[in-house]
Amino acid sequence: MSTAQKAKILQLIDSCCQNAKSTQLKSLSFVIGAVNGTTKEAKRTYIQEQCEFLEKLRQQKIREGRINILSMDAGVSNFAFSKMQLLNNDPLPKVLDWQKINLEEKFFQNLKKLSLNPAETSELVFNLTEYLFESMPIPDMFTIERQRTRTMSSRHILDPILKVNILEQILFSNLENKMKYTNKIPNTSKLRYMVCSSDPHRMTSYWCIPREETPTSSKKLKSNKHSKDSRIKLVKKILSTSILEGNSTSSTKLVEFIGVWNNRIRNALTKKKSFKLCDILEIQDNSGVRKDDDLADSFLHCLSWMEWLKNYESITELLNSKTLVKTQFGQVFEFCENKVQKLKFLQNTYNND
Amino acid sequence: MSTAQKAKILQLIDSCCQNAKSTQLKSLSFVIGAVNGTTKEAKRTYIQEQCEFLEKLRQQKIREGRINILSMDAGVSNFAFSKMQLLNNDPLPKVLDWQKINLEEKFFQNLKKLSLNPAETSELVFNLTEYLFESMPIPDMFTIERQRTRTMSSRHILDPILKVNILEQILFSNLENKMKYTNKIPNTSKLRYMVCSSDPHRMTSYWCIPREETPTSSKKLKSNKHSKDSRIKLVKKILSTSILEGNSTSSTKLVEFIGVWNNRIRNALTKKKSFKLCDILEIQDNSGVRKDDDLADSFLHCLSWMEWLKNYESITELLNSKTLVKTQFGQVFEFCENKVQKLKFLQNTYNND
Repeated sequence: MSTAQKAKILQLIDSCCQNAKSTQLKSLSFVIGAVNGTTKEAKRTYIQEQCEFLEKLRQQKIREGRINILSMDAGVSNFAFSKMQLLNNDPLPKVLDWQKINLEEKFFQNLKKLSLNPAETSELVFNLTEYLFESMPIPDMFTIERQRTRTMSSRHILDPILKVNILEQILFSNLENKMKYTNKIPNTSKLRYMVCSSDPHRMTSYWCIPREETPTSSKKLKSNKHSKDSRIKLVKKILSTSILEGNSTSSTKLVEFIGVWNNRIRNALTKKKSFKLCDILEIQDNSGVRKDDDLADSFLHCLSWMEWLKNYESITELLNSKTLVKTQFGQVFEFCENKVQKLKFLQNTYNND
Repeated sequence: MSTAQKAKILQLIDSCCQNAKSTQLKSLSFVIGAVNGTTKEAKRTYIQEQCEFLEKLRQQKIREGRINILSMDAGVSNFAFSKMQLLNNDPLPKVLDWQKINLEEKFFQNLKKLSLNPAETSELVFNLTEYLFESMPIPDMFTIERQRTRTMSSRHILDPILKVNILEQILFSNLENKMKYTNKIPNTSKLRYMVCSSDPHRMTSYWCIPREETPTSSKKLKSNKHSKDSRIKLVKKILSTSILEGNSTSSTKLVEFIGVWNNRIRNALTKKKSFKLCDILEIQDNSGVRKDDDLADSFLHCLSWMEWLKNYESITELLNSKTLVKTQFGQVFEFCENKVQKLKFLQNTYNND
């Protein structure tokens, strides 16, 4: 990876931010998935941090001609992940894999419940880590949804939340260490991927831009249940649009489904209007609870990173163009503002359907 | 490791337990550090589980001529570990290493506090894992004190306890995975160690056998603070006895200190009667709080495993002897009862000093 190139582009972006208004910095942070800092200074620092990641992905995509991202939403009985690929000249990412697993069923054959005994968690998460490498291609980036450590109401943490935090942390560490130890093996192809936490808040705010808040709507909008349902609804819309709209340049089409996925979604659509995501994945969730939210979230995390990377690529192209620097900076913030409007348009279209 | 040999000895021990009284099974569980089951059936199962571990250690010791155990008490600012070695024909284990580390100081150069950001915990615990392999010999077993997941009074879990649970779990997993991945490297010497959780309750009850409970004493005895102080006091006694009693067969001598340790303990003893364990390790704990309890606990965990292994070896010798089976079984429980009495004598001697 060319460090000089990276330093140059990060420097260009920071110069672009130097004299920008706070609202401009906010929209730039939004379209690349950066934390939105409370001060201009903090906004610039967070923008640089996120660009650091995205620049690595951009250069890997140039090198390999494509980028593969696997995004996970960790849970013991509901572990969901989605894997997508973006080719160099394709406008839309393709869905390669999308699964929900009951970890106790898959790795303990339901013979035991996952206790907090470190020997058991170590064994289970090692097998899960190896499972994520079974299907090719190996991702260039693994993202794991960042778990909250607080129960909504109290400053304490409950057992199930402790368990999923431990699962998230060991998985993150295992993925990094597998690369460190495997790359010590001489004469073998080196593993080269990134592991990164994905913030559920930034994912949610990218896809559900709060409309002008009316007193009643904002309370309802913020309820956890409502936010989950709206994300599931959004993913179903993205799926149906992807199948029904053949032409991949239409603005409301965000992702491609290939092969088996195409038929499954078509079947689910034709069978009944209100299908479940679990139906598409043909999940016989014998635990009875056919939850869709983990599937929706893992899908949206993956799609967010693809969107943030594409937006970042557009920004770097503007900054590498031959036009005057001042014009470039103006074009960058214009691009960001347009992107925000497009997303609002998309959400309105989907909500009005 | 000869599986047949292992199966044979485990079978012999179970036959020995088959017709034993509950009190006999209790003393056998006690001297080998097994969980004390509530029923005879449960006692036998837990005895077998513990013997499985100890048999692996015993065979490794026969093969290598010695056994090295490294025991840890995890904490972010107070990470303590103790490493001991037991040679085949030596009656007492030797202390090879004994440290307390402030993890943020050592691995983050105090530049940042350990947040629960998985990227930071992964980086810190990887460096800690590698650090544990820096000094030779590589242990045959790593034990990590099992952390409680509950705050004493409430059914909830507080942040610091979440952090130390995550530290314990990632460390356990890292140690196991380092071996799995490293052993995939062709033509390199294989890593061969065990990783096991060490139960603080079993350690504490081995060294602080509750005297006949009087109403007042039992409440005081059970207070967490009192139990910690008595363990620190016990370790100081073990240290001073080890130095002052040259002859290693005296019943109150439990461990050998060699080289630099000898002088440090002697200096600490001569300087002032009430020395701190931190003084011996020359820890300038600039955090101001020179806590001794982590040092004491890591020491006692390690010494417990050495004691449980030695007791297990004595039991297997009795069961492998030429005498009548019935007599062997009687001798086993006699040995256990004597061991319990010796420990009570030791504690009384120490407490009366």
